Amino acid sequence: MSEAAPSDPQMQTWKVILAYDGTDFHGWQIQPGERTIQGELQSALGRVTGEAPLPQGSGRTDAGVHALGQVASFALRAPIPAESLLRALNRTLCPSIRILDAKIVPSTFHARHSTLTKTYEYRVWLQTSETRTICSPFIARYALAYPWPLDKGALQKAADCFVGEHDFRSFAATDPDSSTRGGTSEPFAEGSQAPSTIRKIFSSCWGDQKSETGNLLVYRVRGNGFLHYMVRNLVGTMLDVGRGYRGVEDIPRILAARSRSEAGPTAPARGLFLHSVDYAELS
Amino acid sequence: MSEAAPSDPQMQTWKVILAYDGTDFHGWQIQPGERTIQGELQSALGRVTGEAPLPQGSGRTDAGVHALGQVASFALRAPIPAESLLRALNRTLCPSIRILDAKIVPSTFHARHSTLTKTYEYRVWLQTSETRTICSPFIARYALAYPWPLDKGALQKAADCFVGEHDFRSFAATDPDSSTRGGTSEPFAEGSQAPSTIRKIFSSCWGDQKSETGNLLVYRVRGNGFLHYMVRNLVGTMLDVGRGYRGVEDIPRILAARSRSEAGPTAPARGLFLHSVDYAELS
Repeated sequence: MSEAAPSDPQMQTWKVILAYDGTDFHGWQIQPGERTIQGELQSALGRVTGEAPLPQGSGRTDAGVHALGQVASFALRAPIPAESLLRALNRTLCPSIRILDAKIVPSTFHARHSTLTKTYEYRVWLQTSETRTICSPFIARYALAYPWPLDKGALQKAADCFVGEHDFRSFAATDPDSSTRGGTSEPFAEGSQAPSTIRKIFSSCWGDQKSETGNLLVYRVRGNGFLHYMVRNLVGTMLDVGRGYRGVEDIPRILAARSRSEAGPTAPARGLFLHSVDYAELS
Repeated sequence: MSEAAPSDPQMQTWKVILAYDGTDFHGWQIQPGERTIQGELQSALGRVTGEAPLPQGSGRTDAGVHALGQVASFALRAPIPAESLLRALNRTLCPSIRILDAKIVPSTFHARHSTLTKTYEYRVWLQTSETRTICSPFIARYALAYPWPLDKGALQKAADCFVGEHDFRSFAATDPDSSTRGGTSEPFAEGSQAPSTIRKIFSSCWGDQKSETGNLLVYRVRGNGFLHYMVRNLVGTMLDVGRGYRGVEDIPRILAARSRSEAGPTAPARGLFLHSVDYAELS
């Protein structure tokens, strides 16, 4: 259950990429009596290899949040070919969790500590009274059905405000371990007690995505780390701007306030996908 | 709870079109202690109108089977505008059941008895070892992940054999009420005890459907009625042909045998969708 790099020379460090439908799980992190992705993966490793290391994720995803490319690392003694491990895990895992890739990496690799950037996606289904569009049951698990018309230009202007290095305290959950969740490298300010709420956002864009049953509005954001609930709070606030309930000029003010109560509501988990995680190199 | 046309002149007959993700339901038909589509719709009608007629479906769908366009009919005394009924039902139903349309129809309309044709769709995800394609968690609920390469030409040739009027007894479930389930009009042969297993198929085609995460093979079949498990048994048998385990020439022989044991396996529920139901006119 240790996170330490394997000192045993026979141990090999593995990096796996996973996709999951988070709807029926209590998030990533293992919890007694709850069905979690980390717990399912640990059990599957146990069934396949007889070893049950606790896989370390690039970050926790909350209950109901999905992943297209979550990354986890763990160490195994069993000398198993990568293709065999991948197939065996997918055979024993439930179909709502899939291993997309598995490979042996240098023992210094750690799915959370080695992270450079993470990309999240948030999907919105427009359900406006003008179009009376009804959200298909096949989309409802994977998007927020939004009942108000949205100004796409205003949404993008709001999204632009987040690019760069900012203190995102206004967009962090107010729970005690807010900034230590879902984070990558945790930048503690020198001599300070509280973990930093400063993060750097590299891109922040709204786009369209055609789906079988209609069009989705998709927000994609890449950054060096995200506070707990940060993406969902950014989205909830931008949607307030998109529907005209707030102005774009409110965003810099909300950032400056460093107070959760200034920002908009937390968008529901079902629309959020951990899209991908980037590392320095093939580490 | 009566199926009879409303004799009370204040009663109005309603036709609704529904879509549902059947994964978490115990099929269409109401059953004590089980979550069913019919039961959820009846409860929703009760919450919205204070009346709780038992909605009649165009046919039962089994546990795990989905619908893109199921049709149900019921009678209500409440004089509620169609648009209001649709909105109110969608507000109270869970997101995995959606009412797509609601309208008042002549009192002679009955969702099952008035059916002319029904169309089903079966979705297959090709997961062959050559491509090592991994079935996305976002498709797994809605398709059969098939592990063998398939000859599409052979699949279509097999599908062609079903067009026309045939006795489909070999493709019916062996349960006692096999032919009375999922059926439309139930053609009892004159003076006979057993319900007929003859059905007419108007079209039977395999095609491709692009999805976000790859291509699906989709079988679409339209007929004047379907026996219990019939589409899933047709698909299971055609897949045997497509992978080369049976020849196309086996199909006429299986039809002629009128014996379930001659046909292939029952394809899983998760790939099956009730696509649409057609009626004579705006009845």
